[in-house]
Amino acid sequence: MTKKTTVLGILGCGAVGGGLAEIIERNREHILRRSGVDLAIKRILIRDRKKPRKVRPSLLTTDPADIVNDDDIDIVVELIGGLRPAGQIVADALDGGKSVVTANKALLSAEGIGLFRKAAARGKRIGFEAAVGGGIPIIRAIAEGLKMDRLTRVTGILNGTSNYLLTRIGDAGLTFADALREAKERGFCEADPSLDLSGRDAAQKLALLAGLAFGCLVREDQILTEGIEGIEREDVAFGETLGCRLKPVAVAEKERGGLDIRVHAAFIPAGHPLAHTDHENNAVVIRGESVGDLLFAGKGAGPFPTANAVLSDIVDIAANGSHSLRLPALDRDWKRIDATSEYYLRFPIRDVPGVIGLIATALGNKGISIRRVDAALAQGKPGLGNVRIVTHHCRESVMRLAVAEIARLPFLTAKPIRVRLFDPGKGISGTTG
Amino acid sequence: MTKKTTVLGILGCGAVGGGLAEIIERNREHILRRSGVDLAIKRILIRDRKKPRKVRPSLLTTDPADIVNDDDIDIVVELIGGLRPAGQIVADALDGGKSVVTANKALLSAEGIGLFRKAAARGKRIGFEAAVGGGIPIIRAIAEGLKMDRLTRVTGILNGTSNYLLTRIGDAGLTFADALREAKERGFCEADPSLDLSGRDAAQKLALLAGLAFGCLVREDQILTEGIEGIEREDVAFGETLGCRLKPVAVAEKERGGLDIRVHAAFIPAGHPLAHTDHENNAVVIRGESVGDLLFAGKGAGPFPTANAVLSDIVDIAANGSHSLRLPALDRDWKRIDATSEYYLRFPIRDVPGVIGLIATALGNKGISIRRVDAALAQGKPGLGNVRIVTHHCRESVMRLAVAEIARLPFLTAKPIRVRLFDPGKGISGTTG
Repeated sequence: MTKKTTVLGILGCGAVGGGLAEIIERNREHILRRSGVDLAIKRILIRDRKKPRKVRPSLLTTDPADIVNDDDIDIVVELIGGLRPAGQIVADALDGGKSVVTANKALLSAEGIGLFRKAAARGKRIGFEAAVGGGIPIIRAIAEGLKMDRLTRVTGILNGTSNYLLTRIGDAGLTFADALREAKERGFCEADPSLDLSGRDAAQKLALLAGLAFGCLVREDQILTEGIEGIEREDVAFGETLGCRLKPVAVAEKERGGLDIRVHAAFIPAGHPLAHTDHENNAVVIRGESVGDLLFAGKGAGPFPTANAVLSDIVDIAANGSHSLRLPALDRDWKRIDATSEYYLRFPIRDVPGVIGLIATALGNKGISIRRVDAALAQGKPGLGNVRIVTHHCRESVMRLAVAEIARLPFLTAKPIRVRLFDPGKGISGTTG
Repeated sequence: MTKKTTVLGILGCGAVGGGLAEIIERNREHILRRSGVDLAIKRILIRDRKKPRKVRPSLLTTDPADIVNDDDIDIVVELIGGLRPAGQIVADALDGGKSVVTANKALLSAEGIGLFRKAAARGKRIGFEAAVGGGIPIIRAIAEGLKMDRLTRVTGILNGTSNYLLTRIGDAGLTFADALREAKERGFCEADPSLDLSGRDAAQKLALLAGLAFGCLVREDQILTEGIEGIEREDVAFGETLGCRLKPVAVAEKERGGLDIRVHAAFIPAGHPLAHTDHENNAVVIRGESVGDLLFAGKGAGPFPTANAVLSDIVDIAANGSHSLRLPALDRDWKRIDATSEYYLRFPIRDVPGVIGLIATALGNKGISIRRVDAALAQGKPGLGNVRIVTHHCRESVMRLAVAEIARLPFLTAKPIRVRLFDPGKGISGTTG
């Protein structure tokens, strides 16, 4: 049991920061009883003094120096997000000998190496359980439970907004635009959803998971990242004819001399557990040489799950100090593998003679072999249609060039849609649809 | 980083113990690099000196005193199982100021309270990640990731052998006897499978999970425990007509003033994630007020997953010492709730007139309301048949009495089969079948 009180400075007082402050103030006794850790909040950084807040006004400050320079404060909890000014404040806090707990996947996936090194040099910790998978304790599972195993593959559904949209497009037959509107109404979507829909949010999380699992530093910009924009009901329905469900996936697999690492839409066979992760839920499958496939699933976001994950890191650092430096060996070199996949492609077109031939030829010229092709007129849109193609395996780089070339053809009416056929490998044995 | 070498004494050198010794001897450098912990094995307790082993003979001893009295040894790893002599050796090790890592669910669910108190009094740890769920890091998830949340429900499939049998009876149409034979051949079943098939193995694991999740001591014998013996293809098929899959489940739910805690066969709606946990896999769903439902799934047994879980505990204790006393508050009082369920019942009978009436009347006399009843002759067995009944909700205690009474009727040819309809509560939102 730690007798001393652990003093916190919190950066940000939004849904997560404010909720965390409330939980800690209200449940101090409960936390002490469950963990032996006595927590006290000394300061909360805010931007706007005029906003009404539920926390004691005496805690509030608008000056980060009041937190990073306060020797009483043991742990700085960063919940403002983004690179600036969060990065500098976190760096200053570590320099000042404080541990840091953060949910900031953007910061860690961009500048993690410097921050983790800083922490290690000072014997301090950076807890980031809340940065991936909301309330799912996946960072702890990899960093502690599985760190002695040799992990070979991490797959998952890491963005709840994208998953919600594709689920609703499929289940309720909504258009992409209507599904997006509904997600905003229900609070499953930011005002600006581009970080979610572009795949970047998932890529930032995958960078952290892969770094931890494989002991190498991964930056977001090293990950092949495709979004789900433009996917419609007909794409989901096409997947169903293949016995698959359309999901936003993240894949990182160790290969000889490198990583196959990417975020994109995929058709997942109905027997695979990721195919049953719906709505705003997240899931991660970790493959280890000893443990086989392990599945972790649950709500991937929300103030309460996130605050709970932050709190678990705070308590862990308070109880164990720097003893368990949860750090990957961050400096291993790696290169991205140019992996091969099978593809479903949909090209929105003006219906003119020869279209199929031109598209098929463009693919053929790049050596891409076609398994199936069809063309259909768009309902209620005279003269418009879609050419849909399923390919055999081809390399990412080759497909990228071919699609870019076809996208420039004059009869294309919108961006081509690209969905990979998910390869479950050996999968979780014994799960059926 | 811990500089000092952590010295281990291992009790048992079977599949897990021998495998662990091999892994540690072979991967000492890898473990040191990944965790900062340097491990060395000093002694391994065996029973039979004549058996050929892969470990260095100089490590072997047949005298537990060589381990518990050796001041060099920091952690005793107990992998012999059962209550005697394991319980005494573990107690002696704790008395000698050593931490303990064990996979022994039988011991902890019977005598855990004394051992945990002993450990706490000496500032030592008992690691038991390997006791539940094989390689799934579920103990760590509850004890560390979720301990600040208020957990309300734990459900799961905790026995891989039972799950394998029911999966194969359903998928391949095997008889219970043939499925059991196959499970033995494939190594998913002990020579004596009674601990697995009776539900006792699952009850021991549930005792540990519920104790940890709810902070109360649960002994195996306080859990309502029913096995899967006698379940046949027709029971699985009946569940399919209800849109359900037949699974061996464990349920523990906090209710006002008590726990609803039980292990039995259940029909699970196909949309629930536990319905998709097949073959020898295990799964656990934890419900918390903040985090909602979290699913953890994977291989629940096997030497490698188990050895990996043991190793993660060893490294954790070596790195963090007694700082994180992973202990539930073990003395909270509770009583078992007499929960209500809907039931499917099958009574194997000699086909004589009036059978349905007698069974239905016996249920009615206890106030049990019937939703559906049918009778069918057994194929290829002239004069034999089954009466099948689906009931409305009724209390456990009442059903128990009614079934016992019917089982004594002279035309019954075998033990009645009882399967509860699983109530997923709010379930994992957004998972579909």
